Amino acid sequence: MTPQTRRRLLHACQEIVGADGVVSAPDELRVYERDALTTHHRATPDLVVLPTSTDQVASVVRVCATAGVPIVPRGAGTGLSGGAIATAGGVLIVLTRMNRILDIDLPNRTATVEAGCVNLAISRAVTPRGFFFAPDPASQQASTIGGNVAENAGGPHCLKYGATKNHVLGATVVLPSGEIVQFGGRLADQPGYDLLGLFVGSEGTLGICTEVIVRLLPLPQAVKTILGVFRSVEEASNAVSGIIARGIVPVALEMIDQETTQAVEAYAHAGYPLDAGAVLLIELEGRSAEVATEAFEVEQECRAHGCLDARVAQNEEERALLWKGRKSAAGAFGRMTRNYYHQDAVVPRTKLAAVLQEIAAIGVQYGVRVPNVFHAGDGNIHPLLCYDDRVPGQFERAMAAGDEIMRCCIRAGGTVSGEHGIGLEKREYLRLMYSDDDLAAMQRVRAVLDPVGNCNPGKIFPEARHAEASP
Amino acid sequence: MTPQTRRRLLHACQEIVGADGVVSAPDELRVYERDALTTHHRATPDLVVLPTSTDQVASVVRVCATAGVPIVPRGAGTGLSGGAIATAGGVLIVLTRMNRILDIDLPNRTATVEAGCVNLAISRAVTPRGFFFAPDPASQQASTIGGNVAENAGGPHCLKYGATKNHVLGATVVLPSGEIVQFGGRLADQPGYDLLGLFVGSEGTLGICTEVIVRLLPLPQAVKTILGVFRSVEEASNAVSGIIARGIVPVALEMIDQETTQAVEAYAHAGYPLDAGAVLLIELEGRSAEVATEAFEVEQECRAHGCLDARVAQNEEERALLWKGRKSAAGAFGRMTRNYYHQDAVVPRTKLAAVLQEIAAIGVQYGVRVPNVFHAGDGNIHPLLCYDDRVPGQFERAMAAGDEIMRCCIRAGGTVSGEHGIGLEKREYLRLMYSDDDLAAMQRVRAVLDPVGNCNPGKIFPEARHAEASP
Repeated sequence: MTPQTRRRLLHACQEIVGADGVVSAPDELRVYERDALTTHHRATPDLVVLPTSTDQVASVVRVCATAGVPIVPRGAGTGLSGGAIATAGGVLIVLTRMNRILDIDLPNRTATVEAGCVNLAISRAVTPRGFFFAPDPASQQASTIGGNVAENAGGPHCLKYGATKNHVLGATVVLPSGEIVQFGGRLADQPGYDLLGLFVGSEGTLGICTEVIVRLLPLPQAVKTILGVFRSVEEASNAVSGIIARGIVPVALEMIDQETTQAVEAYAHAGYPLDAGAVLLIELEGRSAEVATEAFEVEQECRAHGCLDARVAQNEEERALLWKGRKSAAGAFGRMTRNYYHQDAVVPRTKLAAVLQEIAAIGVQYGVRVPNVFHAGDGNIHPLLCYDDRVPGQFERAMAAGDEIMRCCIRAGGTVSGEHGIGLEKREYLRLMYSDDDLAAMQRVRAVLDPVGNCNPGKIFPEARHAEASP
Repeated sequence: MTPQTRRRLLHACQEIVGADGVVSAPDELRVYERDALTTHHRATPDLVVLPTSTDQVASVVRVCATAGVPIVPRGAGTGLSGGAIATAGGVLIVLTRMNRILDIDLPNRTATVEAGCVNLAISRAVTPRGFFFAPDPASQQASTIGGNVAENAGGPHCLKYGATKNHVLGATVVLPSGEIVQFGGRLADQPGYDLLGLFVGSEGTLGICTEVIVRLLPLPQAVKTILGVFRSVEEASNAVSGIIARGIVPVALEMIDQETTQAVEAYAHAGYPLDAGAVLLIELEGRSAEVATEAFEVEQECRAHGCLDARVAQNEEERALLWKGRKSAAGAFGRMTRNYYHQDAVVPRTKLAAVLQEIAAIGVQYGVRVPNVFHAGDGNIHPLLCYDDRVPGQFERAMAAGDEIMRCCIRAGGTVSGEHGIGLEKREYLRLMYSDDDLAAMQRVRAVLDPVGNCNPGKIFPEARHAEASP
C-alpha cells in the first residue's frame, strides 16, 4: 500500500468510526500481527479498525473496496489456523466492540447477538433462565461468536450437540462489496439456497458477519462425569467405540494420554492417575433417569475393555476438578515445552487406535514429543508437536512430523481439520483431500461474493500450483 | 426444441443408456407431465432418460449441455411443489433405476446409496442390525434419497432429529456442465466451503446428485406414543409449548384437527375421538428410563392444559393404529374432497394458536374447507385447501385462500415452506421473504454451477419482475 493510499484510508476510516476506533501506530499494529497460531506466520496490517455497528463495518468495507485494499475480519484473535492474520496487509476489521446481546427470545429459543459477543457471554446471559448455547470451543471465555461462525468452531460438547453450524439460525453479513445481506433467519431451514450454511465455516473469505441469531438449548436436568482409567491408548480407543456402539451419545468423550496426564497433574492436580496409559473423560447430560442409566452402562463398557478404574464424580466439585485437568492441558504444555504446534485432524472413530499408534511412531522417528488430548468421540485428534525454537532444527523437525501426521490421517480416511479451520496453516493440505476441480468449484463460489479476492486473501485455498510446489 | 434436435438427442441418449432407458412416445411422456403437486401445473418433457450409473448421468448431461437443452432431475415424483416438472421442456433425468445400496459401514454409522434408492429401503436394510435413517417424509415408502436431498425433506420425526440436511454427509453430484464432483465425504464438517450444505435443498437447480452418503442412527431402545385429546386447537397448541418448555423433545409432535380426525376415523378407525377439537400425537424415543419419565411428564403437561384425555399406547398394535390414523390423512382427504392443495409453511411455535385461528377465519371468508394435520412441534403447518375442480370458481377461491394463508404466516414471522420446497409453486412468495438483493445473491451463486440456467429452470426463483407482477 502506498503511503498516500494509507493516509487516505486512515482519514476515511477515522471519519466512519471516530479517531479512537482506528489503530495506525506501528508499535500498536504489531499487537495484531498474529493470532493464536503460534508458529512462524505473522504479518502487520496497514490499519486496524474497530467499528461499533453493522453500518460502520459496511462503510469501512466500501472504502476498502474502492481503494482496492484487502480486508481481514478478526474477533478475539484466538483462532489456531492463522485466519485472522493480514498476510496481504490491508485493513484488519476487529469486531470486539460489537459485543452486545441484542435480543433474547426464550419461547422460541433464540438469541440475537453482535458478532463480537464472547461465546460464553451468551450462555451466561441465559443460564439463570434455564438455557445455554451449546458450542464450547476451548477458547470460549475469549473467542467471539463471529469467529466461531467463521471457523465453524467445535468443542468437547459438540459430540452430542454438533458444531457451530448446527446452532446458528441467521447472520447479518457485510459482503466484500459493502452490501449488507441477511442469511437465514429466526427459523431453521429457510427456503431458497442455504447461503448461511455456505457462510458458516468460510473463514472470513466471503464477507464479515456482524450479527448472529443463535439457537438456545434448555439446560439439561442432570450431568454426570466419569473418569475411565486405561492401561493403553488402544484399550481406551476400544472403549470409545464400545460406548458409541451401545447407542449412548455422551456430550463429551475426551481422551488424555499419559504424557498429558503427567504434565497436567504437575500443574492442575486434577486427580488423574500418573501410571495410566490413557484416561477417558466422559460426560453425560440429559434427564436424570437417562443419565443415571447411561452412567452405569458407560462404567460397564469401560470395565469390559479392561479399564483399571472407572469412577463417577460424586459432586460438582469433583466434576469441576476432572474438567480442570482437561482444560488446563494447554497451560500445562506451556510449562512442559518452550513451543508447541497444536495440530487438528479427524479420523474415522474405528481408526483411532491405529492412527494414534502411527503418530507415536512418527514422534519417535522425528525425535519430537507428541502428547495428545482430544475429542475421541468424534475422532477429532489434536496431536501437540513440542519443540524449542532456540535449538536449531527442532522447529523444522516438528513441522515435518506434523506433515507426516496429516498424511497419515488422510490415508486413514480422515480430514485435515476438525475444528480449527484451514486458514493459512493448512492451505496446501487441501490438495490431499480435494481435486483441482473441487477446489476450482469452491473458488468460483467465492468469486460470486468476492470477485476481486480481497476478502481475507491467502486463506483456505492453496497457492496457485507451480511446478515444484507440493504440500 | 426442434424435431431435429430432439431426434439427435434421442439417438445420443439411446447410445448412452440403451434403447430401453429412453422414453420418447408422446403417450408415455405424459406419465411424467407432473409430480405430486396436483393443482394446475403440468408440462411434458421432450424426452425421459433413465440412467443406471453416475457416468451415464454425466454423459446425458453433457449431451444436453452441448445441445443447450434444459435438464430436470426426478426421483419418484412425489414432490409437492412441482420441482420435477419440466416446465421448459427438455430432458427429464429419472434416477429410479439407480436404487442400489452401495455400502453399509455400521462402525462409522454411514451408508452409501444411489440417488434413486427409496428412503425407507435404507432403514429396512439396517434395522435388523440396530440402525435407522432418520428423515421420514410422508412419502418415504416411495420417495428417493436424491429427491429428499433436493428438497431437504422433513417428516414427523425431524422434530428431534432434524431434516435431511442433518443426515447427509456427502454426495456425488453431476454438475450442469457434466463434470462429476464430490461434495462432503464420510466424515461430518469437512474443511473448505460447505458446498454440500449449499446443494442440499437446492431443488435440482445446481446439478444432479447420483450417490449419497447418509448418516445412520442407532435404533432407540424404547418408543412410547401418546394420544392427547383436547377441546380446541388453542388448548392443544398451548400443550405443545408446555411440553417443549419442559425441555422434552419428542421425536414427533403432530396435531390433527377435528375436521381431519372425523375424515380419518371414517376411513382408518384409528380410535381418534370424534368430538375433540384437536388431538396431539406425541412420540418419545430414547433409552427406556428416559422415555418412561418423559411419557409421564407429557401426560401431566397435557392435563395441565385441560386435555380431555391422554393415553399411552400400551403395545405396538395400539401404537401402529394411532399412527395409521395420522398417516391415512392424505387418503382420507381424498375421500372427503374431490381435489385438494396441500400447503406448507412454518410459523414460530409461540404463534401457532393465533395463526391457526386466522387460517380458520380465512377458510370461512373464502368458503373453503381447510382441515389441518401437521408437525406442531416445529411449527410446520400443512393447511389442506379443499376444492372441486368441476365447480366453477372453487379452484380460484382455494388458491386465493392459500395466498392469504401464506401472507398470514409471513406476518407472524414464519416462512413459506417447511419441507415441501419452493419449486414452481411458491416462487413468487420468496419475494415476501427476501429482498431483490438477497435473491440476486442466490442467483449469482447458482450461476457459478449453472451459468446457462438450464438445470431445472423456472424453479425456486421468482420470474423476472414486470410492472404488474406481484405474488
